This record gives sequence, structure tokens and C-alpha cells, in this order.
Amino acid sequence: MCGSDLWYYRGLSPHDLGAIGHEFIGVVDDIGADVRDLKPGDLVVTPFTYSDGTCVLCRAGWPSNCIHGGGYGNHGMDGGQGEAVRVPFADATLVKVPGSGHSDAMLRSIVALSDVACTGNHAAVSAGVGPGMSVAVVGDGAVGLSAVLAARRLGAERIIALSRNPARQAVAREFGATDIVEERGDAATEAVREMTDRLGVEAALECVGTGESMNTAFAIARSGGIVGAVGAPHDVEVPINTVIFRNVGLRGGVAPARKYLPELLDAVLAGTINPGRVFDFETDLDNIVDGYEAMDDRRAIKSLIRVA
Amino acid sequence: MCGSDLWYYRGLSPHDLGAIGHEFIGVVDDIGADVRDLKPGDLVVTPFTYSDGTCVLCRAGWPSNCIHGGGYGNHGMDGGQGEAVRVPFADATLVKVPGSGHSDAMLRSIVALSDVACTGNHAAVSAGVGPGMSVAVVGDGAVGLSAVLAARRLGAERIIALSRNPARQAVAREFGATDIVEERGDAATEAVREMTDRLGVEAALECVGTGESMNTAFAIARSGGIVGAVGAPHDVEVPINTVIFRNVGLRGGVAPARKYLPELLDAVLAGTINPGRVFDFETDLDNIVDGYEAMDDRRAIKSLIRVA
Repeated sequence: MCGSDLWYYRGLSPHDLGAIGHEFIGVVDDIGADVRDLKPGDLVVTPFTYSDGTCVLCRAGWPSNCIHGGGYGNHGMDGGQGEAVRVPFADATLVKVPGSGHSDAMLRSIVALSDVACTGNHAAVSAGVGPGMSVAVVGDGAVGLSAVLAARRLGAERIIALSRNPARQAVAREFGATDIVEERGDAATEAVREMTDRLGVEAALECVGTGESMNTAFAIARSGGIVGAVGAPHDVEVPINTVIFRNVGLRGGVAPARKYLPELLDAVLAGTINPGRVFDFETDLDNIVDGYEAMDDRRAIKSLIRVA
Repeated sequence: MCGSDLWYYRGLSPHDLGAIGHEFIGVVDDIGADVRDLKPGDLVVTPFTYSDGTCVLCRAGWPSNCIHGGGYGNHGMDGGQGEAVRVPFADATLVKVPGSGHSDAMLRSIVALSDVACTGNHAAVSAGVGPGMSVAVVGDGAVGLSAVLAARRLGAERIIALSRNPARQAVAREFGATDIVEERGDAATEAVREMTDRLGVEAALECVGTGESMNTAFAIARSGGIVGAVGAPHDVEVPINTVIFRNVGLRGGVAPARKYLPELLDAVLAGTINPGRVFDFETDLDNIVDGYEAMDDRRAIKSLIRVA
């Protein structure tokens, strides 16, 4: 389940009949006539958008902006929260998981690659996170925590996680956060500046999508730094004066998950990252509402649905 | 004279007594006690902001955000539109021009390095312009034209200049523009999309600073592309949905001119770029108002003031 699925759950986003859900792994049951690289029985993971793999934007590394691509679980496209799901452009979209007999923990990490691990990675990559850098992450949801994990994987030296939730702080620490800031708004900015010689961080990762979180991200970014933003925007106004007068860049968006998947899958299979740690609630299709409730109440960071 | 000086000329920006002006070259007349690398008689060029060269932001490549730096020509700091000007942190701020007997055309190009050539360069560098890329430049003022020149120097293959002014179109062509778009607003977007397989350009350089120009820049940028923005912002709202849903980044700001100056000065002295071509009006201190009028009436792209 994705935080964005809650918009359907709450009745705020219109939805036709059929399953929603855009983060899933599974075993191939049947293939279309044009599928060449997959066969029934293969274990596969999907990025949260499908893509043809051949258009100019896919070839340029932007599969989430594929000219012929799209999303799962609405507008006539099948979704993953069901017994089966039809995947368009299966060869280009899906990534085959090598090996067999993977542990449950590893399978959870592979599911996390479907969206949040790649989205957090996109925040960090967009902000140019690299060895020795100072990074702050705004947002302690599954994406924010994944951004912490990505920053650590990319070699950041200082990783400040903004969180006031003890359970999420714990995951942030496990994922590599070196510091926790519990304050919000101006007080959070002051705290981060105080920790960074009053300069701010070289990369601020915006993983919420509200106006306040975007403002905080820009305020805690060092002059010449950059905001890596992946939160779906709601009432966001980019502080253009900070962009121009402090040279703070803005880069990010809907993550090109299909591009990141092979590298991150290798890291999961090698045991160097465990993004599945964000799943802290599990249910099944018959009790799917429990998973939604747990996320809606913020009791759970992220719910896993086990099918069959 | 800089376009931003017109705010003083029009009486819209408050100003104390003293000279304005932040773009100048000159011969060193006298030095302060701590100056080590310059001596009277040296020909020097200034970036449009002064900087100490030693703070963490200077060392990180952001001299225009120097912690102890600032601007010329207001708030008690001397300006360049006079017989003489005092330059703070002279060793760190000024760049010595090697050689002697430079032609008037070359000296004009060196003056242009003070601001517009570096600012146009910053738009292109911020947008990651490189060999083979497609670029569009929004704005046909001295900065926009300089951005065309920078895009060409950095190897862009296609450079689309948005301009409806024949004299400026001519400079854009000389500077390397491969295409001219005369339309504005939605029609400009449509024209650029039509020229780029309906994709837009990989880099859009925003050199105006209005809401319309920023929107145009984002609209003509390809998904996964980037806007390099250097226009001082007036009523600009960044289209955040384009940032997030089309992965179009935003990077730029007040140009770190001191960082770019040595490389661009070499290019000027080698004769490979001639940014001074933007000066198309000349006057002197006694008739300085003529230069302002020419720019204010948009008869001139940029006015040069010759002192002595």
C-alpha cells in the first residue's frame, strides 16, 4: 500500500471498479504473445509505472515519463492489490528477480523497490548526494526513510532526519541517519542551521509535498545547495527568491523507478540495503481495510498485503 | 550599465548618495595595506559582487553567496559608474587582465565578463548544457544573448532564441542561435514543441525573471530536462506540477561570476568568444543619462560608459 492509495480509501479521489495498487512483486502466470524475456514461473518486481522502454524519454533515462507509459490501478488499467494483475509492456516494465528461495525479509525489500526505495533514491540522486556530503530529509514516511537509506548508500557523511515519531526515528537511525531533528517549521530550520555552522545542508530531500515541507527544505539548504523533491505537491509554492538569491536548486519528481531497479535489486540481493524495513504492518486481501486503517491512523509506516 | 540599474534610474529603488554600477574594468590606482597580488597600473576586471575568496561558500564555488561579500553601488558601498571605485577584498575579488594594448573590442568583451557574460554562462552551466544538447533561451536582453553564446561555447547543437527584435535576433545568430522563435506565451511553447518532435528542449534558459518567462521556460523544457534561471524574479510562481510530474528541474541564481571569470577571460583573450558585442550604445559620464534612456527605451541592448 502506498500513502497515495489513501486518497482512494478516504473517498477523495474518484475511482472506477477494479483493483488499485501500483507496488507489487509476483510470479508470472501467463504472458502476452509479444513477450520475449519473461516466462510463467518467473519472479518479477514492477516499478510503480509501466513504460515501453523504447521511446526517446525512456532511452534518456526517464521511464516514469514514458510517452506511452502510465500508472496502475485506475483509468482502465489493472492494479496490483488483487489475486492477479495484467502488466503492460511486460518485457520493458518488469524486472526479473534472479535466484530462488529468497527469505521473507528479502522479498519485503524487493516489494519496497517497487516505489518507495526508488522514490527515496530519486530524491537523493536528484540532489546529487555523494560521498562526504551533508543531507537532511524532510518527511519520515516510507519515502523519507527510504531517502535516508539512499543518502547513506550514496555516501553522505551527515544525514539529518526530521521526525518526531520514535518508531520512525528508530528506522531512520537503522537506515543511516546520524542526527534527528524533532522540531518543525522555523524551529526545525534553526536546529539544522545550528548543527551545520549556520550554513544549512548541501542537499535537502523533500519527501512530503506540502507547502510547509517545501519551505523547510529550501530554508535548511545551504547556499549553492539543492532540494531533491519527490513529494506529490499539495499547495506548494517554491520560494523563488531562495532559488535565485541563494542559488538553491530544485530537482526531482516522479521517480524513474525502472531505471533504478536493477542497481537497487542487486544491492538488496547482496544484502547491503534492506528497504523492506519500512513495512511494519501486514494483512491479506480479505482484511485489506485493516492495512488502510493502520496507515490512515499513522499507526503503520507502510502496510504489506500478502496474497495467497 | 545593467538592466537592473534602471530601477534606480526610474526612481523605483531607493538609493543614497554616491555612484551606482557593478560592472567595470579599470586600471589600479592605489591599493590597500593588505593587498598582495595587485599593484598600481594593473588592468583588472571585477565580478559584479565582491567576495573574500576564503569562506566556506567561496571555497565551494559560490563567491556570489560569499558570507562576507556583497554588491557595489548602494548601502554604503562604492559603485563603478564614476571616475574611481574602491573594491573590497581586492585580491580575492578582482581578476588581473594579462597582456597590454588590447583592442577596444576586446576591452568591451572584458567589461561584459563583469556580469552578463558570466550570468548567461551561469544559466547554461546550471542547466547542464553540454555537447549535442538542445537548448532554448527565453529573453533577448544582454543576459539572454550571453546565454546563447554560453550554450554555443558549451557545445549545444540546437539553440533556439526567443526574440521578436530584429537587432537582437542578429546578435543571437552571431552568438550561435540556430533558430529564432518570434512568438510569445503559449504560441512560443507550441513553436518550440513543433521544432523538437513535440518534446521540448533538454535545457531552457530563463533570462528575464517574470512569471510569464518562467512559465514559458518550464513549458518548453522536455520531461527530464531542466530550467537554468538567472532572471531576477518578479511575480514568479514556479510550476511545481511540471517539476514533479515531468521531472523538470530548476537551477540557477545570482551567477558566481568570480568563479567563471578566469576561464571566460581566457576565451575572450583567445578570441573564441566576443561577449562585448552586446554593447550597442556608448556614452560618457557627462552624458550618462543618454545611456539610461537608450536602455529604458529599449533602443539599446546595453550601454557602455567610457570614463576619461
